[in-house]
Amino acid sequence: MLKNLLAAIILFTAIAGKAQTYPKDSAQLKLISNYILNNYHCYNDLRDLCKQIGHRISGSPQAEKAVYWGKEVMEKIGCDKVYLQEVMVPRWVRGEEEAFIIGQKGVRKPVVISSLGNSVGTGGKKIKAEIIQFNNIDELKLMDEKKIKGKIVFFNYRFDQMNVNTFDSYGPCVYYRWGAPSEAAAKGAIAVVIRSVSSAYDDKPHTGSMRYDKKYPSIPAVAISNVDADKLEQQLVKEKKVSFELRSTCEMLSDVKSYNVVGELTGTELPNEIICFGGHLDSWDIGEGAHDDGAGVVQAMEVLRTFKKLGIKPKRTIRAVLFMNEENGLRGGVKYAELAGKNHENHILAIESDAGGATPFGFSMTMSYERSEKVKSWLPLLRTYGIYNLDRSGGGADIGPLAQKFGTPVMELLPDSQRYFDMHHSANDVFENVHRRELCLGAVALTAMVYLVNVHGL
Amino acid sequence: MLKNLLAAIILFTAIAGKAQTYPKDSAQLKLISNYILNNYHCYNDLRDLCKQIGHRISGSPQAEKAVYWGKEVMEKIGCDKVYLQEVMVPRWVRGEEEAFIIGQKGVRKPVVISSLGNSVGTGGKKIKAEIIQFNNIDELKLMDEKKIKGKIVFFNYRFDQMNVNTFDSYGPCVYYRWGAPSEAAAKGAIAVVIRSVSSAYDDKPHTGSMRYDKKYPSIPAVAISNVDADKLEQQLVKEKKVSFELRSTCEMLSDVKSYNVVGELTGTELPNEIICFGGHLDSWDIGEGAHDDGAGVVQAMEVLRTFKKLGIKPKRTIRAVLFMNEENGLRGGVKYAELAGKNHENHILAIESDAGGATPFGFSMTMSYERSEKVKSWLPLLRTYGIYNLDRSGGGADIGPLAQKFGTPVMELLPDSQRYFDMHHSANDVFENVHRRELCLGAVALTAMVYLVNVHGL
Repeated sequence: MLKNLLAAIILFTAIAGKAQTYPKDSAQLKLISNYILNNYHCYNDLRDLCKQIGHRISGSPQAEKAVYWGKEVMEKIGCDKVYLQEVMVPRWVRGEEEAFIIGQKGVRKPVVISSLGNSVGTGGKKIKAEIIQFNNIDELKLMDEKKIKGKIVFFNYRFDQMNVNTFDSYGPCVYYRWGAPSEAAAKGAIAVVIRSVSSAYDDKPHTGSMRYDKKYPSIPAVAISNVDADKLEQQLVKEKKVSFELRSTCEMLSDVKSYNVVGELTGTELPNEIICFGGHLDSWDIGEGAHDDGAGVVQAMEVLRTFKKLGIKPKRTIRAVLFMNEENGLRGGVKYAELAGKNHENHILAIESDAGGATPFGFSMTMSYERSEKVKSWLPLLRTYGIYNLDRSGGGADIGPLAQKFGTPVMELLPDSQRYFDMHHSANDVFENVHRRELCLGAVALTAMVYLVNVHGL
Repeated sequence: MLKNLLAAIILFTAIAGKAQTYPKDSAQLKLISNYILNNYHCYNDLRDLCKQIGHRISGSPQAEKAVYWGKEVMEKIGCDKVYLQEVMVPRWVRGEEEAFIIGQKGVRKPVVISSLGNSVGTGGKKIKAEIIQFNNIDELKLMDEKKIKGKIVFFNYRFDQMNVNTFDSYGPCVYYRWGAPSEAAAKGAIAVVIRSVSSAYDDKPHTGSMRYDKKYPSIPAVAISNVDADKLEQQLVKEKKVSFELRSTCEMLSDVKSYNVVGELTGTELPNEIICFGGHLDSWDIGEGAHDDGAGVVQAMEVLRTFKKLGIKPKRTIRAVLFMNEENGLRGGVKYAELAGKNHENHILAIESDAGGATPFGFSMTMSYERSEKVKSWLPLLRTYGIYNLDRSGGGADIGPLAQKFGTPVMELLPDSQRYFDMHHSANDVFENVHRRELCLGAVALTAMVYLVNVHGL
């Protein structure tokens, strides 16, 4: 009987606690949302980043400018601490690039290319060879290497339009950008052309990271647009023998000193419990890195600004991290985890926003079952802000090392993915293609999650 | 005991039935989704409608072209029946329109206007008067009519950016377009200028329907863009006395014969149980009516095409309706319900798609609790296609008369609302602002819902 009474008391206390807490949370989240949507500082920040600095590949002068810009914005917000974490980053330079498709009777047509990130160039010399098409890696692997040797391989793998979440199509596709060039080199190819990893049917090539397998020669690798890939495919059907001529000067220079930028509001009660969240400050060297990942950067800073302006003093430490070098090295993410270890920091949660600035619909989570159930219990509060999905497992690239080294619970903001790979790593990724309200709603979702974890722990 | 056994058998049958049915539903929905995303016929249809016909206000030659275009598309799909429902529609013609803002020392600045739909014009004559600003209707109602008499009223009511769903901001705003002009006339104003009902901060005025209260004089009413409204507001602060000059020739002509366009696949088992779904074929006379409501029209036709191409023979009758005159009269919706009554038709569900072609996140529903619970039981199947929200009550304008007359269960597709009112009723509402995958996902959601209601009833 006493046991039952005790159970009843515990249950009642739990329910009463919830009833007291949730209306307060609900009111506070509405203030957060109103502040962000009505002032849209993060949108203005993004305009500054995109238009005053522009694209900012690791190690570039623009990346350096972005570091000091981020630091200044967070200082102006009035963070308790703003500091830089030094990290050496690779410095890849695109230089010049041009290519021609040479058909029957020697007809030369220029084609717009984008060298893949980290690719070697042709050293400024023209290379020219017959181009040979493979629709997937199996076709290449099954072909006798004599038929490939000395040729230029065209990977014609298409972005699958049938997945509802375009990230599910990105995965298989990205292999052709990341690893397949070395597979072609293993068979004796002298260069690789890939169909852009892109959901858009347009004339813009999309770059992105590739990695050489040191066992094989490092050969130049470039992307062409979906429209040009279709044309090339048709020309190959019609003319059978088509050549590709390439000249490029891209190269990997020595590593350069750079920085992660960190800003935080120190917890009033549990300062050693850190909730970190961020995006990456570097971008590719075309477009303006607006969705990838200017959006994540300005949303992370907006969390701090919103707490500060609304006078919410976090009981735990909340920290925005603008990571350097996500795109072609992940050195910033690795360094952040290394320093977290060295400083014996206790991260109770890390959240990444690196999937663009569109309307959010959820968060992916990798954490214990109990923690994920706790987060899911907040769904009634989050649905008001369009957050319906807390199911997918996932995290993010920059916070991956934290999760791997320390088992830190991680989350990633999930924006609607339909337009993302139209723009990703291409000249389409500019400020004008980010919608103010959509970007702000991402910041609202991120701030709401940080708010709830700060109040209730994890 | 027998009763318990019976109950157990019923329960078991229900569970087994579910287990058998749902995997089949799940597989079928994936085929539906794949077909639509991979072929995107509805996107191509929308291009044809927007680019070959363009905007198509009720009673216009373009609206007539759209009727025959819709009929032809549904005939090509191979519907069992395609037919027109005759309906007399209003014919409002914009004609010419120009306006100037006249400041201190007589400085005249032209301002882009858009006469509100159904508004009278100035008969081609110039009218000019002092402009007097009201931030809301209460300010007008509280002011002595002597101060308003003979003046031009400027309703400077802003779109609330703080709502997450922009439709929640549209409601209060639209009053200033629909009803407020007559309130100004009641106080003796000679014309009304409104700040556009728009979430975008740009230089495009947004039109839309207005209605005169016959008790008061019908006075011209026009919209100006958000940018121009801000400029006017600032000028009024600075110069105090500012005049507005307007010349327009818009007018309401005699009613014109037009049509709803209906296409259906006849049910194989329960042909008298009708599931209807649609959008409206008419649009405003600026832009191309791409989101409003070309999207709904092509999505409705895509449902029929998908059933047909995948060889799914519906057991109930599924019917696409392209309604005429939603924008400035709703005559098509009223006529449809009238004919449904006359023909003793049994609609088990009507679904409207008239909230744009963006990524869908749910359906609003107005129906009995039991029916809505049945629909909600399908959520696990629908979540795969981004449909998370089946909560909001709602329906649609064109299917409203069905619901009112017969209590027909109604639903409306809910696409992400962030961009919709940037474009709605303005020159921004063009094909280029519709995203292929987003539009297709709306068609997937609509087809999935029709599929499930067809299989399981409602």
